[in-house]
Amino acid sequence: MLDKTPTTRAQALLDTFGAALEAGRIDDAVNLFAEECYWRDLVAFTWNLKTVEGRDQVRDMLQAQLAAARPSNWRVATGEEATEADGVLESWISFETATGRGYGLVRFKNGLIWTLLTALGELKGHEEKTGFTRPLGAKHGQNLGAKTWKEEREDEERTLGYEKQPYTVIIGGGQGGIALGARLRQLGVPTIILEKNDRPGDSWRKRYKSLCLHDPVWYDHLPYIDFPKNWPVFAPKDKIGDWLEFYTKVMELNYWTRSTAKSATWDEAAKEWTIVVDRDGEDVVLRPKQLVFATGMSGKANIPDFKGRDRFEGEQHHSSQHPGPDGYKGKKVVVVGSNNSAHDICAALHEAGVDVTMIQRSTTHIVRSDTLMDIGLGSLYSEQALANGMTTAKADLIFASLPYRIMHTFQIPLYEKMRERDAEFYAALEKAGFQLDWGADGSGLFMKYLRRGSGYYIDIGASQLIIDGKVKLAAGQVEEITENAIKLSNGAEIPADVIVYATGYGSMNGWVADLIDQETADTVGKVWGLGSDTPKDPGPWEGEQRNMWKPTQQEALWFHGGNLHQSRHYSQYLSLQLKARMEGLPTPVYGLQAVHHRK
Amino acid sequence: MLDKTPTTRAQALLDTFGAALEAGRIDDAVNLFAEECYWRDLVAFTWNLKTVEGRDQVRDMLQAQLAAARPSNWRVATGEEATEADGVLESWISFETATGRGYGLVRFKNGLIWTLLTALGELKGHEEKTGFTRPLGAKHGQNLGAKTWKEEREDEERTLGYEKQPYTVIIGGGQGGIALGARLRQLGVPTIILEKNDRPGDSWRKRYKSLCLHDPVWYDHLPYIDFPKNWPVFAPKDKIGDWLEFYTKVMELNYWTRSTAKSATWDEAAKEWTIVVDRDGEDVVLRPKQLVFATGMSGKANIPDFKGRDRFEGEQHHSSQHPGPDGYKGKKVVVVGSNNSAHDICAALHEAGVDVTMIQRSTTHIVRSDTLMDIGLGSLYSEQALANGMTTAKADLIFASLPYRIMHTFQIPLYEKMRERDAEFYAALEKAGFQLDWGADGSGLFMKYLRRGSGYYIDIGASQLIIDGKVKLAAGQVEEITENAIKLSNGAEIPADVIVYATGYGSMNGWVADLIDQETADTVGKVWGLGSDTPKDPGPWEGEQRNMWKPTQQEALWFHGGNLHQSRHYSQYLSLQLKARMEGLPTPVYGLQAVHHRK
Repeated sequence: MLDKTPTTRAQALLDTFGAALEAGRIDDAVNLFAEECYWRDLVAFTWNLKTVEGRDQVRDMLQAQLAAARPSNWRVATGEEATEADGVLESWISFETATGRGYGLVRFKNGLIWTLLTALGELKGHEEKTGFTRPLGAKHGQNLGAKTWKEEREDEERTLGYEKQPYTVIIGGGQGGIALGARLRQLGVPTIILEKNDRPGDSWRKRYKSLCLHDPVWYDHLPYIDFPKNWPVFAPKDKIGDWLEFYTKVMELNYWTRSTAKSATWDEAAKEWTIVVDRDGEDVVLRPKQLVFATGMSGKANIPDFKGRDRFEGEQHHSSQHPGPDGYKGKKVVVVGSNNSAHDICAALHEAGVDVTMIQRSTTHIVRSDTLMDIGLGSLYSEQALANGMTTAKADLIFASLPYRIMHTFQIPLYEKMRERDAEFYAALEKAGFQLDWGADGSGLFMKYLRRGSGYYIDIGASQLIIDGKVKLAAGQVEEITENAIKLSNGAEIPADVIVYATGYGSMNGWVADLIDQETADTVGKVWGLGSDTPKDPGPWEGEQRNMWKPTQQEALWFHGGNLHQSRHYSQYLSLQLKARMEGLPTPVYGLQAVHHRK
Repeated sequence: MLDKTPTTRAQALLDTFGAALEAGRIDDAVNLFAEECYWRDLVAFTWNLKTVEGRDQVRDMLQAQLAAARPSNWRVATGEEATEADGVLESWISFETATGRGYGLVRFKNGLIWTLLTALGELKGHEEKTGFTRPLGAKHGQNLGAKTWKEEREDEERTLGYEKQPYTVIIGGGQGGIALGARLRQLGVPTIILEKNDRPGDSWRKRYKSLCLHDPVWYDHLPYIDFPKNWPVFAPKDKIGDWLEFYTKVMELNYWTRSTAKSATWDEAAKEWTIVVDRDGEDVVLRPKQLVFATGMSGKANIPDFKGRDRFEGEQHHSSQHPGPDGYKGKKVVVVGSNNSAHDICAALHEAGVDVTMIQRSTTHIVRSDTLMDIGLGSLYSEQALANGMTTAKADLIFASLPYRIMHTFQIPLYEKMRERDAEFYAALEKAGFQLDWGADGSGLFMKYLRRGSGYYIDIGASQLIIDGKVKLAAGQVEEITENAIKLSNGAEIPADVIVYATGYGSMNGWVADLIDQETADTVGKVWGLGSDTPKDPGPWEGEQRNMWKPTQQEALWFHGGNLHQSRHYSQYLSLQLKARMEGLPTPVYGLQAVHHRK
């Protein structure tokens, strides 16, 4: 084999695999997998987002799906070369199915498949009009009575939701709803996005004034239009707001502002939803075939039911309602919570000269922004990565190709490096009394995010304020709130004029309960988390994010969202699933997730 | 030499050239040029946009500029390979000067320089913050009393033009003003753009309703943010309007709407302009150091002083005021003119069922859109070009590297191909009585554009209407206008209820006359044209566009504009010239153009 290039060997292995699949020789195909193996499929085979682990699960999936999928033409992707390092032969791949074209990434160990990612790229006959097939724009030739683009848009705005029903309604016009809406428009799926605020981007504008993105720009691009090369690394909230507003306009989204969904019911007979929308004070009834909740990971504010909240005489609000530090000088502000919002808010208050105390109720994982950017993301999302030939699409797929089951093993060494690099910093924090963690298994921030969506702070300066005692720190559980103080379980009493509850957010199916009913919310179950049996992410193992970007136990009900990377990347797969249904293509779902938790 | 690659040979030639320049051996450097040679410099050496032709002119330029320029480090550009075909050795190059870093393209014949393009890319110490140096955005660390991005922008909007004067004022907020404004902001040059309309993009929105761009998308990108891959080939005017509106916002331009400059005077003592601006009904006085007119190639409407215009009882307007065909059904509309606007307007009127006649006063060059895109632009600006590895930056520079003096020789064969491909089409047009030309020397559309800015139509269907007689055609000079008709010199009388004067636009220095005074307008002279001694472009030979993007005979007065390609590309050079002046860098201008024509 020494005279064969990695590419040649990869292609040969793919040929064998492809031949077995095409002949329906499932056992042969299964035997091409290593004992420890992971096949993550994003729609192409399973019409789901599904990771099967181990040969038995691979067999089970193929028995269910192979006949309909009819995969073929497995190739090392055009223009790519396979690579080999540390015993792993890795290759970008492309393939076809009965209804689509896909691509992915495969990793072989000793000639057997260790990890396989297959992702649906496009549906045959329903490809996006882009590049060589981009629309002409001008109307050439003779077009008696032709309408202009502007007239067509005006007609659309006038009729969609009234004379003509959208196929999809998306509740929530933040980056998730916007990214998904853009993909759906490119696929020709009539869609209305409902946003309660006045303008696209307001969900960012209305946050506390010092807020900037915590993820760096290379991670954050929206579909189709990248942030320019001179966009800041961490965009201030209002700048993101402006970009989202611009994007919504130029991507021609049907975006209803000042619009709130009041109720939604599933009509089993007509197979459609009935959604009553308050559109700027007027009720409109929408009847889409598909309903997507894009209400945000940080959407449904959670305030624990502390004893005595109603007694408190001062001002109190959830962090999502916190306007910023202006007007609080001279007051004692107490922030309950020690994760990202808490730190940002405390730092801003201190900068404005306000007396502020943070109450830490449980451990927090802290990583410094520079360190995280460098060690955590740098190989995939950075200027250096771009200079090395990385693209956003590739980075997203490489990320997606790491099986959730073993992702922590990739992460742990990175966080060990970070711990080492910033040892003095952590020692100083602990000396100040701050309680640190590194995730349940030392796997750090991203796993915490995937498992529970919270529990960390990406430090951009607030930690130093805690180290220096400039932001006061108290530790303990909240026992009760009095007229003017918070009493902790250890007896400490912290005087307060203002309380900010930086106490996180609830599962998105809370919106389902509000809008549809509790029964449907329970049917659908908890949103987010991997079932890792770590704090706030109880087992059993799910293998994928609960309920995100894929079919749920409620027909035609979906969830979209996550950070900007996820909003961008997973909007592709969700939009294709919706398009396929609109076109009446067969979409046999494999392994629809069971529900183990209600919230 | 057979064993040396083109790259090695190109580098060796560059080394010899560079060594001669560094040693000040001007004659040696000149002798490295072929007898027929062209050196086009965009700012780097000449602080001008200047093409010198022939060895004597090269010598003269070097004698004037070499000592101050101190060029060095001539290299085949990193990552590029020189190529050789048809006896021409061609290479991308990079070099440095005392104050800048530049790049370009060189073509050698028989080891001697045939064409050399040198373009300034950036000023040392004043580089744009992009990629690796993009701004951080978030304020890390401790920032007592720090302002947010939003607060900084609000401060800027509040004070610029009032407490704080801008360095540059740009009159005109179309794509030219916007592209230049974006570059200047990235260079940290405080700038205000004055736009008379309500919103950025209105200069497009207010045109006749069927208008779409005539240049295809790959040619049209603005600086920094490309149109996405799914943008139409020929964007409808309102879609361009939307893009410009949000570009203006996300690129953080100081863009004053409803603002008209009423007067401008040059203060020779203070070396600044005094500009009285009507800003939404309120007078504001601006005192910038630099004034740029970006009022548009299609800005100053021209209506010939036809006898009897005041007698006409129907409606009459210039094409720039034409709203579209709505409301004209049942009326006889006569369009005077036979170039782009005339054709678009006639076609739209016909499509709306209106009786329309086109009056052709002189020959028109017609080329079909598909054919032009394919044969004319395809190798540089197309999907195929992109697939072949072309980039916008490279395409712009390749275009810029073709000396104006001989550009027609490159164009003539292309237009011969187009003539051949569409022979039947042209025969049919001529049969219908339409008078065609191919430019003064058969060099076609782009030369006509460069020479006179007009005189052509890119056919998207109107020609077929003329062929079919659906748009009526009359030929001749307008002798006079009566109460209800146009009388031609050949005696024909064309009844008219409405007259549209698709009679073109005047030289941009007309705005200078209006705003400053006639004397300054005369001092500056005619804007646009190459001095080719062809219709509407009288000699003597200029070698570059008159007055565009470079120093004029009026200190601190500049013109920007052109089509989207030129607005994008030349905004780079104009912005660098302004930045250099702001920073007090030496900018010794070589060969400031003399003025030979006043308009």
